[in-house]
Amino acid sequence: MESSGTTQESRLRLNTAIVHDLLVRFLKDETNNAGFSKVVIGISGGVDSALATALSVEAFGKGNVIGVLMPYRTSNPKSAEDANTLCGQLGIRPETVDITAMADAYSKVQNVADPIRRGNLMARVRMIVLYDISAREKALVVGTSNKTEIMVGYGTLHGDTACAINPLGDLYKTQVWQLAEAVGVPKQIVAKAPTADLWEGQTDEGELGISYKTLDEILFQIVDERSTDAELAQMKFDSPLVTRVREMIRKNQFKRRPPLIAKLSYRTVNVDFNYPRDWGI
Amino acid sequence: MESSGTTQESRLRLNTAIVHDLLVRFLKDETNNAGFSKVVIGISGGVDSALATALSVEAFGKGNVIGVLMPYRTSNPKSAEDANTLCGQLGIRPETVDITAMADAYSKVQNVADPIRRGNLMARVRMIVLYDISAREKALVVGTSNKTEIMVGYGTLHGDTACAINPLGDLYKTQVWQLAEAVGVPKQIVAKAPTADLWEGQTDEGELGISYKTLDEILFQIVDERSTDAELAQMKFDSPLVTRVREMIRKNQFKRRPPLIAKLSYRTVNVDFNYPRDWGI
Repeated sequence: MESSGTTQESRLRLNTAIVHDLLVRFLKDETNNAGFSKVVIGISGGVDSALATALSVEAFGKGNVIGVLMPYRTSNPKSAEDANTLCGQLGIRPETVDITAMADAYSKVQNVADPIRRGNLMARVRMIVLYDISAREKALVVGTSNKTEIMVGYGTLHGDTACAINPLGDLYKTQVWQLAEAVGVPKQIVAKAPTADLWEGQTDEGELGISYKTLDEILFQIVDERSTDAELAQMKFDSPLVTRVREMIRKNQFKRRPPLIAKLSYRTVNVDFNYPRDWGI
Repeated sequence: MESSGTTQESRLRLNTAIVHDLLVRFLKDETNNAGFSKVVIGISGGVDSALATALSVEAFGKGNVIGVLMPYRTSNPKSAEDANTLCGQLGIRPETVDITAMADAYSKVQNVADPIRRGNLMARVRMIVLYDISAREKALVVGTSNKTEIMVGYGTLHGDTACAINPLGDLYKTQVWQLAEAVGVPKQIVAKAPTADLWEGQTDEGELGISYKTLDEILFQIVDERSTDAELAQMKFDSPLVTRVREMIRKNQFKRRPPLIAKLSYRTVNVDFNYPRDWGI
């Protein structure tokens, strides 16, 4: 079955006012702690980057948020249109960097037909653009991956998952929608079907083979509630679906962890030399 | 002063036979655990990638190591020559992917004159090539960053530091030299001055402003021995130099840590959802 009803749904309901304040403060405090007061963010026209941009404008002021549009020649023009609508509403003037020449320069050398490899290529080229602009502007890269994507690995390592700071990483997709609506992200952005916009008609839910609503309910039970398979079956979740979600989480663990380093000494990076990110500041 | 003499030096001396066996086993076991039996590795002509390639050939056999040369139009031809000598000795046939078109496609859009930004651009384009080939070949990317580079942040985030598994991450540069010599890496590769080969005459030691020998001794004291500034002064290390090294370690901590995620739920990625890399396998 698709859902176990209102009990689950209410567990995923946010107090948007509290979460909103917390995230704006998080962005401001952590960015300032690292010695920065500006951020750079890739704006796709989707709800995740729209929300991250809106929160960033509140945290840093519109003059300190560099929004970057990075279309590829096959991108849906509607994506750029929605991104521009958002920027207009927030009062920021986006920078546009077309990634076609860079991505195609590689495709010419290595004939990349596989859509997964093409998607990874484009996500990584966009990472290069954002990180280069961040160096030029002395700004931090703000990430836009939500908890649903991070958990099931629906993102490109060293691509769209790459960032210095991520305000959305602990919000499931259905929670991103709630908060986006609450902070006034344009309705057409909140309402449209999420897509990586790599080919016509692509949608996240089509690719994942599950609705975000059901996926988030299962993830919440597995990750936050640590529910067992038996408990999930009692809640009437489809067992093969639960197994598939668990498998996605497990298989994509490598995207959430730093590289493996062979331990040889008293103190090894990623093993026991492991201070907080802002250690010593 | 440049060194506190033989006491320090002997602490950094490796038992190359033991370390060699351990690293070959580490590569084999961890790669197999992740479900892979092939690796891909960028070969620069320098000693780090030469050593990582030699260890990989022992671990996986020469048919399962994809060495990739990625010259840019300004690369020193000597680098490719040394890389080819290494591959000839190890019996692997490298793949060459020229990164000029990709890197220049970006430089045309954004005029990147700053050598640091240019270096980061090239390192990240090379990451794209290696990760794409790893997907094509169902292989893991082997990293070649050593402990000295990782500690002082002499590497590009999402560039040359990006990998699935790194056999050298707990070896200081002077230890890489010892092990490279012991496993028979060609003498001209071990002997030459380390360089990122981004412009003519560039050397690591010139850029860092310190010899690897002294840097490694200071790092060993700070990182492995947890020595205080007073203890380092007693050992006759130059105090301003020690301060500079500590500052490099601290300032580059962000390159060693995953992105910051705002904690909102019971279990947050990078905070308390933090299983081992191969969790559940």
